[in-house]
Amino acid sequence: MPNLDLVVNEIADEMRQRPDRGEVATYIPELARVDANAFGIAVIDADGNVAAAGDSDTSFSIQSISKVFTLTLALGKVGDRLWSRVGREPSGSPFNSIVQLEREQGIPRNPFINAGAIAVTDVILSGHQPREALGEILRFMRFLADDPAITIDKAVAASEQRTGFRNIALANYMKSFGVIENPVDFTLGVYFHHCAIAMSCKQLAMAGRFLAHEGRNPSTGLSVVHRERARRINAIMLTCGHYDGSGEFAYRVGLPGKSGVGGGILAIAPGKASIAVWAPGLDNAGNSHLGRIALETLAKRMGWSIFG
Amino acid sequence: MPNLDLVVNEIADEMRQRPDRGEVATYIPELARVDANAFGIAVIDADGNVAAAGDSDTSFSIQSISKVFTLTLALGKVGDRLWSRVGREPSGSPFNSIVQLEREQGIPRNPFINAGAIAVTDVILSGHQPREALGEILRFMRFLADDPAITIDKAVAASEQRTGFRNIALANYMKSFGVIENPVDFTLGVYFHHCAIAMSCKQLAMAGRFLAHEGRNPSTGLSVVHRERARRINAIMLTCGHYDGSGEFAYRVGLPGKSGVGGGILAIAPGKASIAVWAPGLDNAGNSHLGRIALETLAKRMGWSIFG
Amino acid sequence: MPNLDLVVNEIADEMRQRPDRGEVATYIPELARVDANAFGIAVIDADGNVAAAGDSDTSFSIQSISKVFTLTLALGKVGDRLWSRVGREPSGSPFNSIVQLEREQGIPRNPFINAGAIAVTDVILSGHQPREALGEILRFMRFLADDPAITIDKAVAASEQRTGFRNIALANYMKSFGVIENPVDFTLGVYFHHCAIAMSCKQLAMAGRFLAHEGRNPSTGLSVVHRERARRINAIMLTCGHYDGSGEFAYRVGLPGKSGVGGGILAIAPGKASIAVWAPGLDNAGNSHLGRIALETLAKRMGWSIFG
Amino acid sequence: MPNLDLVVNEIADEMRQRPDRGEVATYIPELARVDANAFGIAVIDADGNVAAAGDSDTSFSIQSISKVFTLTLALGKVGDRLWSRVGREPSGSPFNSIVQLEREQGIPRNPFINAGAIAVTDVILSGHQPREALGEILRFMRFLADDPAITIDKAVAASEQRTGFRNIALANYMKSFGVIENPVDFTLGVYFHHCAIAMSCKQLAMAGRFLAHEGRNPSTGLSVVHRERARRINAIMLTCGHYDGSGEFAYRVGLPGKSGVGGGILAIAPGKASIAVWAPGLDNAGNSHLGRIALETLAKRMGWSIFG
Repeated sequence: MPNLDLVVNEIADEMRQRPDRGEVATYIPELARVDANAFGIAVIDADGNVAAAGDSDTSFSIQSISKVFTLTLALGKVGDRLWSRVGREPSGSPFNSIVQLEREQGIPRNPFINAGAIAVTDVILSGHQPREALGEILRFMRFLADDPAITIDKAVAASEQRTGFRNIALANYMKSFGVIENPVDFTLGVYFHHCAIAMSCKQLAMAGRFLAHEGRNPSTGLSVVHRERARRINAIMLTCGHYDGSGEFAYRVGLPGKSGVGGGILAIAPGKASIAVWAPGLDNAGNSHLGRIALETLAKRMGWSIFG
Repeated sequence: MPNLDLVVNEIADEMRQRPDRGEVATYIPELARVDANAFGIAVIDADGNVAAAGDSDTSFSIQSISKVFTLTLALGKVGDRLWSRVGREPSGSPFNSIVQLEREQGIPRNPFINAGAIAVTDVILSGHQPREALGEILRFMRFLADDPAITIDKAVAASEQRTGFRNIALANYMKSFGVIENPVDFTLGVYFHHCAIAMSCKQLAMAGRFLAHEGRNPSTGLSVVHRERARRINAIMLTCGHYDGSGEFAYRVGLPGKSGVGGGILAIAPGKASIAVWAPGLDNAGNSHLGRIALETLAKRMGWSIFG
Repeated sequence: MPNLDLVVNEIADEMRQRPDRGEVATYIPELARVDANAFGIAVIDADGNVAAAGDSDTSFSIQSISKVFTLTLALGKVGDRLWSRVGREPSGSPFNSIVQLEREQGIPRNPFINAGAIAVTDVILSGHQPREALGEILRFMRFLADDPAITIDKAVAASEQRTGFRNIALANYMKSFGVIENPVDFTLGVYFHHCAIAMSCKQLAMAGRFLAHEGRNPSTGLSVVHRERARRINAIMLTCGHYDGSGEFAYRVGLPGKSGVGGGILAIAPGKASIAVWAPGLDNAGNSHLGRIALETLAKRMGWSIFG
Repeated sequence: MPNLDLVVNEIADEMRQRPDRGEVATYIPELARVDANAFGIAVIDADGNVAAAGDSDTSFSIQSISKVFTLTLALGKVGDRLWSRVGREPSGSPFNSIVQLEREQGIPRNPFINAGAIAVTDVILSGHQPREALGEILRFMRFLADDPAITIDKAVAASEQRTGFRNIALANYMKSFGVIENPVDFTLGVYFHHCAIAMSCKQLAMAGRFLAHEGRNPSTGLSVVHRERARRINAIMLTCGHYDGSGEFAYRVGLPGKSGVGGGILAIAPGKASIAVWAPGLDNAGNSHLGRIALETLAKRMGWSIFG
């Protein structure tokens, strides 16, 4: 078994030197001004050992990675009834496609494309005030990461809200089919804010531990979800976690993972480790370019692929 | 660790008694007349122990399961150059959709939808006579299953060839984009015949062993493919192996698998076992209804899900 | 030449007796409560003679028929530059489809599908206050119909605004591509209100006269648009005026026409007459069922088809 | 009324001098080697006067223009029952799109896209030998053009047959839905051959006369179809005759017309004239570039637009 600390540091070194860094998202100024050379990685194994390197303490906008946690919360609230509002098949489309919604009567294909995540947020909101729902999500993140300092980047949320016309379109489109139950503004308000949660690699890897260990935090022994639910969330991460690059990620990395447009990826090595990487440059499918390569390298050197 | 023999026999009993059996494929008479009550299962573990129950020695038409093996052969021939002719993303469409091809210039999304498998067959054919290519595929199946008695059901192949207008359309459509290089009739001839290979669950589970054990047959020690290639084929099986029901299969079963319209499924528990089930009734997505349930039960009872 | 008055009265009688009346739109209560048995027709010939029958003086919600007049206004404002914001090809899709927008970068196919009409409204608005733009549209309708009593049904506009999620989606979607320049709420406010203009068949036939007579009102001699522009607006009405039933309307009626979900249709017999019919029940494509049949009968009896 | 002869000669002069000539089709060598500078025009008025200029006696491959005549024949055979096999709505797609077929269960949108024309050919074939069906089509063309010298360019037909993979795909796809009843090879054989009919502008304008004159040849008085059918064929030509450029043609030219990839266009001025133009260079939508401009000029100078 290779030494995890060594491997993690090697990877950070290798990534720092690569000239190919992808393209930083520019659709809002708050993301555009992030340092394209940043790179962070944090791995927490079953015993709670943390191997980290690079900018692993720097907060970044977790964006769509938050969808893993809102999915977990929504399943906790309504259980399998969630699946009448959102599917769980890969989409074969970009993250913000509206075409699929028209073909399938407003039901998003899975909870990780934007439309699906908005529908999941609507389930969490269900009748509460946006402020309350957002508070619940934030408390859940702080609990999972065991860190009360986690906050929302209000400037990011405000920018998203001001320019997120395509998400507004998706939400209204679903509303026209009755898939969104709350006022669209409320649901989107919560959605834009939970995507704007800022976390470091270390915090994120900590928050993902329950997915690597049968639904429990192996250090505290606290159960977050049943084993089967953790397993199923991992399955959805594998098939749908990287939009139209999910097949590629499974093929190359071989771990369940969820990416965000801020350049972060949360990956799970079941039974072994929770992993977070961050590199702001994105590939064509909108996933962190170096983040994916770092995870591919890590999975290969540690022998962690779930595919043998 | 539960007793595998016991679990396999329990599952066969439970499946035999279920009233919900799905719908047997009727598009050709040879498939339509298969006994809807048939059920077979065979599991071969790392030590070569075979646990089998039900109709595990009865031959059935493996149909699309053959695509796992033609993919393996084609990768052996041309390596990663294969990926210029076919993608590896889930399709978000039924198995025989032609829409995606128009959007993506004739390049099929993955090697397991019909169009992709036809393109893979075209790579294996590449300049040879159909008879030679077919011989190569058949020899490969016999080698993997260690059984020279495996044959092609000529009546099935002839029926497919006579009525397979949609596959003829797919092949000609790809030909119009230059994705098919051989005469369409040649490529389709080989395709229809390798889909008509008849095997039992025991033979099929034997043939799949290299995918469960890092590319090697653990009994003979013979290597079929490199470890990384076996892993990657498993990844494609997981994300694309059940057409537009792939997300569902990953979510419920949690194992790489490939289904066929004859009612068979080959599933891989990496490091643990190669599994074949057969139940002719299909669900809405065209995958074996009881086959999927049997695998879900097996994975749960044995703790074999790759997702933790 | 048959007697126009006689023909118009015969048609009104025949329509009154037909049992097949289509389905009245029910998506807002104001439309749902309209009398399904209502039928009106008004035809104004080149000499200004008015032949009318049935409920030809009853006001109804002109809805999408207003798009003919906003198109005329927008062309008056920006001329052919309009065509960088909207196409002029039939859509091959329902009136409110969003799929086409994704495929064509947010540019609506033509000015008569909802997305296209919203883009046209945005051009009219361009920097003004919604109230001013709406005033301009209303003044134009009153001028054309020579009737200062024409007004907007505020209850209809308010209902549309409260429930028009799909139109909100379309507008935001175009905004995300930069096709909408004003605040979405402003543009949609004007759009919902001009669709809520209430007119009778007589008023509507009067307003359409310039399209039948080379751009001029033949009674007053006043020019509204150049001859070529009138001709071109007629062409767009023929190819796109009935959404995905435009081919059917051209095939059966053979006149340029524009329908509205309130059950009205404005049709133009170039050189001969301006025609308005109203029958609230709709066919599957969302066009007035009896309105189309009445126009088909009128065109046949009068020999007015433009196709010979 | 301007002098037709003069106008026709002016147009030929103007077209000869234009530098923008579009792109000659190159998908088969027989079309690729046609002179890009060729231009022909022939107009036959109600009295049988022929105004012609340029290469109006040169034969060219009429290609899709033949679809107007096969539609006429098929309607003669089965009447309105034809419309259960093919629609009559504009497609909103390129001429050879297969996407629409999947969405609408194998029923082509209209008889002028390739799929629709193949379905129409299948109706004409219905149980006969290809040779007989082809003979019938050819005899019909010779009768209409009053010229027994019209023939099929066998080299063109052979080239199409050898390389027409997309049409083979379309036909097999429809066959999979049961929309094609004859063996696909038979139907396509007839289709490729009738598209390869070679005619001059003069012959083509002669053949189209019945559409301009209520279904009859005004010189001989012979009736080809009922008045209503002629009118309806004109309507389909207007809404669907130029593929995804049909709206543009209606907008600019204002006459029913049908284009062919060989560079020809047949246009009808109802009650006034039958018109054929030929200029081999095509625009982006696959229609004759100068042909359309010539017709736009002709319609404007003669005041023949059907839109007023």
